[in-house]
Amino acid sequence: MKNTPLILVSNDDGIDAKGVRSLIERLTPYGEVVVVCPDQPRSGQSMAITVNDPLRITPLEDFKGARMYKTSGTPVDCIKLAMHHILDRRPDLVVSGINHGTNASVNELYSGTMGAACEGCAFGIPSIGFSLTNHSSDADFEQCFRAVDTLVKEVLENGLPEGICLNVNIPDLGHTPEEMRICVPCQGHWNDEYREYIDPAGKKFYLLCGTFINDEPENEHTDEWCLAHGIVSVVPTSVNRKINIPKSLDWIKGISEKYKSL
Amino acid sequence: MKNTPLILVSNDDGIDAKGVRSLIERLTPYGEVVVVCPDQPRSGQSMAITVNDPLRITPLEDFKGARMYKTSGTPVDCIKLAMHHILDRRPDLVVSGINHGTNASVNELYSGTMGAACEGCAFGIPSIGFSLTNHSSDADFEQCFRAVDTLVKEVLENGLPEGICLNVNIPDLGHTPEEMRICVPCQGHWNDEYREYIDPAGKKFYLLCGTFINDEPENEHTDEWCLAHGIVSVVPTSVNRKINIPKSLDWIKGISEKYKSL
Repeated sequence: MKNTPLILVSNDDGIDAKGVRSLIERLTPYGEVVVVCPDQPRSGQSMAITVNDPLRITPLEDFKGARMYKTSGTPVDCIKLAMHHILDRRPDLVVSGINHGTNASVNELYSGTMGAACEGCAFGIPSIGFSLTNHSSDADFEQCFRAVDTLVKEVLENGLPEGICLNVNIPDLGHTPEEMRICVPCQGHWNDEYREYIDPAGKKFYLLCGTFINDEPENEHTDEWCLAHGIVSVVPTSVNRKINIPKSLDWIKGISEKYKSL
Repeated sequence: MKNTPLILVSNDDGIDAKGVRSLIERLTPYGEVVVVCPDQPRSGQSMAITVNDPLRITPLEDFKGARMYKTSGTPVDCIKLAMHHILDRRPDLVVSGINHGTNASVNELYSGTMGAACEGCAFGIPSIGFSLTNHSSDADFEQCFRAVDTLVKEVLENGLPEGICLNVNIPDLGHTPEEMRICVPCQGHWNDEYREYIDPAGKKFYLLCGTFINDEPENEHTDEWCLAHGIVSVVPTSVNRKINIPKSLDWIKGISEKYKSL
């Protein structure tokens, strides 16, 4: 008989966030759950790691049967510390989230939630990041549970290919969405990204804000289209970034010769 | 006649690093150079952005004809602030580096140098990250100049396809490498990533260290193989992470039905 699956949970909103607490409760029936989260919100940390500064791990009281730890590091630090200094066996699954706010489209690049999932993936462990399109600290995460159940079951059973993890976004409908689809990340960008302020000394400073612009609103294969239509989006995401060189980059094949001739 | 190219320069070792100073000197003959760097070293920042905290931009004295700014943010913040609040026209090229230390293989994921290049790429601007495989603050960057010349010339002329930037690593040979090749990122991982310490109060803390393990040392198409053989590696890197679903992930095509049936 197979051992109980070991599920490593992390997030970027910090150990006290409602999103991760909801996720933990939903995951404990699937196996042994160990939670290693940042001790404070670390949104927008992407795959950042802590270099040169000391990192600390603090064990906490169990929560709903899960072993709990907080660290002073980033989401990626949490996964690395769990792998090297907390877990005594290799996890079968890494689950990150549930994030308070969307990580669809380009947001995935900056997301600490997806940073943790990508780090699990870089360790060769099947990894999933879940996000709900609602930033509120008090958002309703129950509407995500069918997505969590579906994907956790299937990924525990089938695994994921080396170098590929899943970026799952759930639209905030106030009830469980009726549909889930495989999508591609939407092409989009942020506009007017900073608001300018003047401090009491008369000096400018800037705070991140901005509006997301969907560059392909009619493309129904994208995660943004699905979310706008009340559908859960599942984007398989590559961590190793290998590409096939497209025709428009053919010139680069001559670069060795150019280099030699310089 | 075409306008003078505008080149935006950033890095993750901070505005005072020898690597970026060497790069600036080498780039000024190619166009108008504007430099926007972190005010302190921000290694390992990946594509992290500063959320909620105020960001400041400080203009500095020109250096070798380049306009100079430092910011209190990450490498990605530097690119975003440059695009929204410093530059008065769209750059033709973003160049990041020259990093003190390798960003080959999986290191690219955590690299702030590549974070800045990827952010330039996300803005749709041809972008290149340069790194020298020597961490020393006093490393010899002249050995990188032929690589910089070759790629800056070619990319200014030919551009790069949407969503693809270049991760260029130069082996530290003590002289200009004789060869440059297009590579794929090497499969590899870090081992024993943390050293454990005990603080004066008797509590444990951890510092990042570790040894890089090359999982495919015989594969001569990888960046690590090239660097080990004294060859400059050029890895075209995808920022949008779109994938074609491989056979081993075929099961996921049935996920919509599974979700409905739950």
